[in-house]
Amino acid sequence: MTEKFRYHITVAYDGTDFAGFQRQPTARTVQGELERALAEMVKEQVTVFGAGRTDSGVHALRQSLHVDLPFKIDADGIKAGLNTLLPKDIVVQSAARVPQNFHARYDAKERTYRYRVFYGKPRNPFKERYTLWHPYGLEVERLEKGLSYFQGEHDFTSFASIKTPIENKVRTLYEASVVKDAAEEEYIFTFCGSGFLYNMVRIIVGTLLEVGDGRREVDEIEEILKRRDRSFAGPTIGPSGLFLVDIAYDKNNQSFEEML
Amino acid sequence: MTEKFRYHITVAYDGTDFAGFQRQPTARTVQGELERALAEMVKEQVTVFGAGRTDSGVHALRQSLHVDLPFKIDADGIKAGLNTLLPKDIVVQSAARVPQNFHARYDAKERTYRYRVFYGKPRNPFKERYTLWHPYGLEVERLEKGLSYFQGEHDFTSFASIKTPIENKVRTLYEASVVKDAAEEEYIFTFCGSGFLYNMVRIIVGTLLEVGDGRREVDEIEEILKRRDRSFAGPTIGPSGLFLVDIAYDKNNQSFEEML
Repeated sequence: MTEKFRYHITVAYDGTDFAGFQRQPTARTVQGELERALAEMVKEQVTVFGAGRTDSGVHALRQSLHVDLPFKIDADGIKAGLNTLLPKDIVVQSAARVPQNFHARYDAKERTYRYRVFYGKPRNPFKERYTLWHPYGLEVERLEKGLSYFQGEHDFTSFASIKTPIENKVRTLYEASVVKDAAEEEYIFTFCGSGFLYNMVRIIVGTLLEVGDGRREVDEIEEILKRRDRSFAGPTIGPSGLFLVDIAYDKNNQSFEEML
Repeated sequence: MTEKFRYHITVAYDGTDFAGFQRQPTARTVQGELERALAEMVKEQVTVFGAGRTDSGVHALRQSLHVDLPFKIDADGIKAGLNTLLPKDIVVQSAARVPQNFHARYDAKERTYRYRVFYGKPRNPFKERYTLWHPYGLEVERLEKGLSYFQGEHDFTSFASIKTPIENKVRTLYEASVVKDAAEEEYIFTFCGSGFLYNMVRIIVGTLLEVGDGRREVDEIEEILKRRDRSFAGPTIGPSGLFLVDIAYDKNNQSFEEML
């Protein structure tokens, strides 16, 4: 067996023109573009292990992944090399050698997502790719009360796509908050947790929009969580407002990166 | 001759996916999309008269145009109607009935353009469509000194595309300034003037980038203006950083709009 060298790489991407993160035979995906660029760089096939998938149209400010390369490469060289080979809607932000047992997905301790809702009128063509347009006033107090029900450990079955293959739908949210940015005319939701189910953030915010403009009572959230049935929650809103903000790993791996 | 009703309409657009403002037989253009939507709304062909053309990839925060419609329509109805018929990268911001002699192009008194240069590293996929990436430090003092040569009335032959068909290349710039936005890692240039020649802002900023990073001496600008020869100025930089910010008209027309 030839020796391999593992690298932890972080990337940002504008998800609009990708059919999601995961490799597909014919569609343009983030994993596909990264694997193509890596293969071009090291002249052999490389598999990208992402920390998590993002759906078609979902963006990442800092996604994490790991790869095994056939030889040792200076981390700055990986970054510069890949950035010349990648399309302009994906950028490598950092690369660092990590122990062979580091795993981008299994070692992730915390994931942070953001969802941006633009409430200005009329539409803003420059926010079209990066927000959901919902030109209706929302009561921040109602949103905050609604968000409080999601904090902590819950079974999120009602807030996950019915296509979710995973059995255990218990997840912990450390943070679920919203701020109103009046200058940008946006409501910005932030969620930080141990893990997220398929479509979870989009269904949570989709339900909160109904709470925020009065179509639903705030305390329905508690009831919906208890039901463990997707049909009781609100709609899965569009992907354009959703950003994977960051993925946190424990200190051990970070100190290894700094050592090199 | 049937009676016509003239309207002044302002629109914003993300220019990335347009082959410029001006109608073309096969390419997707801003004028083409507006004329298609207007024809659909009033059930007859309508010609859009823009205040000025923008090139392929150039954006507008507030472009002005006028149209003659076959019947009187409530201004809010035009706005709402067109916005449902237009693609998401064009938005109508305002519509107002104006006197039959109002002309979006000939009555324009002042045009303001902005050019955004992103100097952060690495590339930022979310700024790719809306900035020029130039990851080199620029000295703001040198930029400001260079900009001062452009203020006032000048023959801008050296800073216009050789394809410019207009004979008289004298224009007046009331403002030519730059600010460094450290949070966004951008240099933002603003130009306000009586009129602009083809590619003028892109050639001026292209030349200033060479001044700002020391490739050219600041006082060369004065010399280049005097030469009246395009070949002495810097390159025509890309369209992605360029925004038509606003077009100003004199008070008379505005008060007419308010009357209605």
